Amino acid sequence: MNQKGSTLVLICLFFGISLAAQSGDKSAETIIRENSAAFSQNLVAGDIDAVVAAYTDDAKIFPGGQDILRGSEAIRRYWTPGPDRKSQTVYHRVNQEEISITGSEAYDWGYYEGRTRYEDGKETPWKGKYVIVWKETAPGVWKIYLDIWNRVPND
Amino acid sequence: MNQKGSTLVLICLFFGISLAAQSGDKSAETIIRENSAAFSQNLVAGDIDAVVAAYTDDAKIFPGGQDILRGSEAIRRYWTPGPDRKSQTVYHRVNQEEISITGSEAYDWGYYEGRTRYEDGKETPWKGKYVIVWKETAPGVWKIYLDIWNRVPND
Repeated sequence: MNQKGSTLVLICLFFGISLAAQSGDKSAETIIRENSAAFSQNLVAGDIDAVVAAYTDDAKIFPGGQDILRGSEAIRRYWTPGPDRKSQTVYHRVNQEEISITGSEAYDWGYYEGRTRYEDGKETPWKGKYVIVWKETAPGVWKIYLDIWNRVPND
Repeated sequence: MNQKGSTLVLICLFFGISLAAQSGDKSAETIIRENSAAFSQNLVAGDIDAVVAAYTDDAKIFPGGQDILRGSEAIRRYWTPGPDRKSQTVYHRVNQEEISITGSEAYDWGYYEGRTRYEDGKETPWKGKYVIVWKETAPGVWKIYLDIWNRVPND
């Protein structure tokens, strides 16, 4: 092999290793994991601004029994409790079974669970499963682009 | 710039263009669109082998009110009509709103609709929304890895 040939092989190796490193990026997985935990905390705390900020501006959510809701304003309306609300989400947790990252796109899936407290103090647990598609909107900033879920029976 | 420098720039350009061409691959989108149409046809025709073959071996489906179903056998049981079935899916169609391809991963989302015919000849329409994550398991072969959906009210 001549020198040019060797240079080409080295450059190909470099690109290959770079791409491999990128696709298994630990920090992106960590960020997504932290974002999920923060989403649950913000939901329970009633910090709707933070909940909405977890989504891209053009995100879509797929709540059961409704049409697809598109964009920040529709997502804000969905997550904002009504003025006459008689119940409150007092617990929310996401159990991610897989986080897969490809470049600036990612998805994760698994189960979520929560508890609703009613005016009379009684609490109802619920559980569901979900798929989320994430986008890296800026370096190191991962936001939810698609969010779909449905219930499973309680244990 | 010396000759080695020029060679490096040319190789980088080549990789850049290759990656750009790959991420906007028309044929992958066409294959996914065709696979979706075939899935509906196979479901209505009762070709369960073809329905199961549309998924990867390690695929996960997320039917409402059930746990996550994992792998070909669980997916086969889900889609196989019961021995005492009193109804039949006579129409199924997927309306994809977006197909996004990144390397050998892709997702699409949108609405699906169908009609069930009962023993007495009556038919009930239904409609839902979905997100699918696809994987390219071999060059030009796209299979469903994640399939989640939930209903919307009928019009």
